[in-house]
Amino acid sequence: MSKKAKLKIIPLGGLGEIGKNITVLEYGDDIILIDCGMTFPEDEMLGVDIVIPDISYLFRNRDKIRGLVITHGHEDHIGAIPYTLKRLNIPIYGTKLTLALLETKFKEHKLENVNLNIVKHGDFVKLGKFEVEFIATGHSIPDSSALAIHTPVGIVFHTGDFKVDYTPISGNVIDLTRFAELGKEGILCLMADSTNAERPGYTMSESTVGTAFRDMFANAKGRILVATFASNVYRVQQIITAAERNNRKVVLSGRSMINTTTVAYELGYLDVQEGTFIDINDMDKYRKDEIVVITTGSQGEPMSALTRIAYGEHRKISLLEDDLIIISATPIPGNEKTVSKIINKLIEKGSEVIYDSLAEVHVSGHAKQEELKLVHTLLKPKFFIPVHGEYRHLKIHSDLAHDLGMPRENIFIIENGQTLEFTQDEAKRGPIVQAGNILVDGLGVGDVGNIVLRDRKHLSEDGLIVVVMSIDKQNRNVVSGPDIISRGFVYVRESEDLMAESREIVKKVLSDCEKNKITDWTTLKFNVRDSLRSYFYEKMKRNPMILPIIMEV
Amino acid sequence: MSKKAKLKIIPLGGLGEIGKNITVLEYGDDIILIDCGMTFPEDEMLGVDIVIPDISYLFRNRDKIRGLVITHGHEDHIGAIPYTLKRLNIPIYGTKLTLALLETKFKEHKLENVNLNIVKHGDFVKLGKFEVEFIATGHSIPDSSALAIHTPVGIVFHTGDFKVDYTPISGNVIDLTRFAELGKEGILCLMADSTNAERPGYTMSESTVGTAFRDMFANAKGRILVATFASNVYRVQQIITAAERNNRKVVLSGRSMINTTTVAYELGYLDVQEGTFIDINDMDKYRKDEIVVITTGSQGEPMSALTRIAYGEHRKISLLEDDLIIISATPIPGNEKTVSKIINKLIEKGSEVIYDSLAEVHVSGHAKQEELKLVHTLLKPKFFIPVHGEYRHLKIHSDLAHDLGMPRENIFIIENGQTLEFTQDEAKRGPIVQAGNILVDGLGVGDVGNIVLRDRKHLSEDGLIVVVMSIDKQNRNVVSGPDIISRGFVYVRESEDLMAESREIVKKVLSDCEKNKITDWTTLKFNVRDSLRSYFYEKMKRNPMILPIIMEV
Repeated sequence: MSKKAKLKIIPLGGLGEIGKNITVLEYGDDIILIDCGMTFPEDEMLGVDIVIPDISYLFRNRDKIRGLVITHGHEDHIGAIPYTLKRLNIPIYGTKLTLALLETKFKEHKLENVNLNIVKHGDFVKLGKFEVEFIATGHSIPDSSALAIHTPVGIVFHTGDFKVDYTPISGNVIDLTRFAELGKEGILCLMADSTNAERPGYTMSESTVGTAFRDMFANAKGRILVATFASNVYRVQQIITAAERNNRKVVLSGRSMINTTTVAYELGYLDVQEGTFIDINDMDKYRKDEIVVITTGSQGEPMSALTRIAYGEHRKISLLEDDLIIISATPIPGNEKTVSKIINKLIEKGSEVIYDSLAEVHVSGHAKQEELKLVHTLLKPKFFIPVHGEYRHLKIHSDLAHDLGMPRENIFIIENGQTLEFTQDEAKRGPIVQAGNILVDGLGVGDVGNIVLRDRKHLSEDGLIVVVMSIDKQNRNVVSGPDIISRGFVYVRESEDLMAESREIVKKVLSDCEKNKITDWTTLKFNVRDSLRSYFYEKMKRNPMILPIIMEV
Repeated sequence: MSKKAKLKIIPLGGLGEIGKNITVLEYGDDIILIDCGMTFPEDEMLGVDIVIPDISYLFRNRDKIRGLVITHGHEDHIGAIPYTLKRLNIPIYGTKLTLALLETKFKEHKLENVNLNIVKHGDFVKLGKFEVEFIATGHSIPDSSALAIHTPVGIVFHTGDFKVDYTPISGNVIDLTRFAELGKEGILCLMADSTNAERPGYTMSESTVGTAFRDMFANAKGRILVATFASNVYRVQQIITAAERNNRKVVLSGRSMINTTTVAYELGYLDVQEGTFIDINDMDKYRKDEIVVITTGSQGEPMSALTRIAYGEHRKISLLEDDLIIISATPIPGNEKTVSKIINKLIEKGSEVIYDSLAEVHVSGHAKQEELKLVHTLLKPKFFIPVHGEYRHLKIHSDLAHDLGMPRENIFIIENGQTLEFTQDEAKRGPIVQAGNILVDGLGVGDVGNIVLRDRKHLSEDGLIVVVMSIDKQNRNVVSGPDIISRGFVYVRESEDLMAESREIVKKVLSDCEKNKITDWTTLKFNVRDSLRSYFYEKMKRNPMILPIIMEV
């Protein structure tokens, strides 16, 4: 079997998009899964909370699945795991912090008895015919791993999200030595992070942000509030360190900041002096220049602590004169305007606000071009699949690999669901399997689709007109109505004439139908909708959803 | 009168926002208006097409208005003029290209007999007690002006949108000599563009983009498509020049590109060789390397030519192998994701795409910090109002003025509607007048307000449930229904049980009401809505709009 079997690599998410990372490796009767993340909805996915991958392919092959290996604990790599576990029971392998963050999700989802297995960098995990080696990398969360998956046809190397940081804040430095060894041994296929593939040069070390903090903290006269990603434990560490150097206490604000930092602290990922953390209720016991608040909301999220502070709606923290606010993050594409609004609001209230346009208070967690070249050069893979990126990122990453000497035919820019089949010497495209987006709205998973979204879009643009009337079953007389109700269409007080005219139009349709002996409700409704649509469009250049309802009495 | 009268400056738009620029200057019985622009709706203004300023203050003082002076022909400075002219007949003064662009708007709005007066740089226009001097500046559209408004209490200097470009593509160089003269004469108050106040250094000259084009055009093997702003006549000129140097013909694509370029060409703002422009239908008569297409869609606008080309929906232009596509623009905040989608689509189809992350194919039209310092230093104003910017831009621009030596109390960061009152020596805040946003949706101006927007938002997030029933007027029996209709809520085929259960809940409410002798429809509707809301929230964590309708028969 193993002689003839081919290795299949099937990305079910993360290609042609940033987020929702999930990859299937299949060999004979064995399947392993790398990561299982979520992503945020596109603008047109109105009302949708999150988007998770379609795992129909896994469900159909559920007997083959040997395990899920996780590169790190970010939402776009672990966020869909609870939904997947509700359908499939899979043993999970990851580093300590990664699994601890995952467990907080399981509590929220009330998932119990999950088969969790902690691994360390350097460990090998045997899963069917696969052996997965966890290798230290750098990223904006501790305990991140690259994976070398030893398969019967060769080694598949998956970088996970990574950057090359020679001076990380704690933990292991990226294990370039092991990268080099594996490169010498021979890599069949590399899958590498393309997020920053458009950017020339190197991503700066996380430690440079600490240097910037040091100066800002030393000069601040009042309180300091720093907003950042809760999962960026290194950043939180550097804020704590700068606070301690300046004899300031640290308050945590925002649910995810408190949860994540607590987990990281309890597991020993944070180096904090006794007494540094204080409760938010004890802030008043200290002078303004003895306080640092670390808060969520660096993306301007509507319900986050920073947003509530900016709008004066936070129960415990009101802005004070001399407050220094540092937004230690860059807006994720799509969040620019929301973040800018918060910045404006904070400055209006008199705070000094430092953000990415003004100072180096954030660095990326992803490798730029020179780092990618380093990793390609060390690993010397035979085949290459750029992953984690929109098409533009995958394309430029593939050009980079080509510039380093790899033949074009050995590089595969593929889409979610596209199978690649590997032997020791060859790689080719195989069948396309089901892959795509499952929309989560409230408790509903997958019950919002194109028709629902199209209706929401229609309603959002020009609102709704309901036309309702009761008609006598026997003689087909209108016994009540037509009544016209509008929502999201026009100010009611300005629309009285409009509504009166609409009613006349509907009455005319009804009498025309009567004249022409049209008695089926479908035609009647169609005519009502059609006449009103023309009327509103001509009168107002608007196109509300029109919902004619006939009650037979 | 004029001895005691004070000069009032009242911005009605453009402060605390980018766009919708409009400023009132008032002295005694004379009012003049500077610009009258529109802006694009915020994300939460669902279904709204454009936003224009509230001009109630002008309407109340309409007898005083002597004229509208325009700095340049961009939408955020002229876009609201047709709406204003429908309520107020005001003589308009501007440069040739500015007024020509305005006239194309008047045609669309079927406005006739507008009092338009062409002025040249260096001209003075007397408007009541005001004398307005038009001064050449640089910007991303030709014929841009700064305005020196000579008033009885001193000179008010308004920069308009500007940058300092020593090598513009055509027309006048910014008249720094006149800036210096006026500075020596004495400026009472400066109002200056803050758009780029956060950015250090100088904005590059427009001509640097031409240099980039030259190399790209020389190396291109197939067609070249360049997307840019239709109003950037300089950019269009540089594309045409690069085309001519490489023996390529030029095709214009997109309505606004054709209209604006035609106007600019006919008025002599474009230097084009005979035979360079060809009709889009004649493209096939030329080889691929003889064609340049200049197109709209640089912001990823859904109906634009570039979007239609990317999605294969353009009637005349299909993408070909070897096409080089240059997006000669930067996404305006909020458009990042849309532009990125188009880029992905174009690269997927095999085109080479050059955009701002990859090469210098765009420069800003607004002054950065060093240019602002130059202008402040030449003009040496007594008072300063930073304009054209969100609060963050106004704040940093005011800090810049302070760093140059201006006392804080002479700098006014104000909001739309805030009056400032000036004598020769003093400035202070006066009353706040009505100012704000008027939403335009289709033909409706101002008929969409907060309630309508709130309903649209509600409908867009979780859709709609209509509950309709006919009840006998006399004995209060339900004679038909309750029927339940949903839109934008959940897939109908998956919701049959849900709808059946909802109907049972409504029936229960009806029978409870009957038992409790509740007979008024308002209470009945309230109870229906309440029960269903709880049910849907508990079952699905969703909150659709619920619309109970009772027909009396």
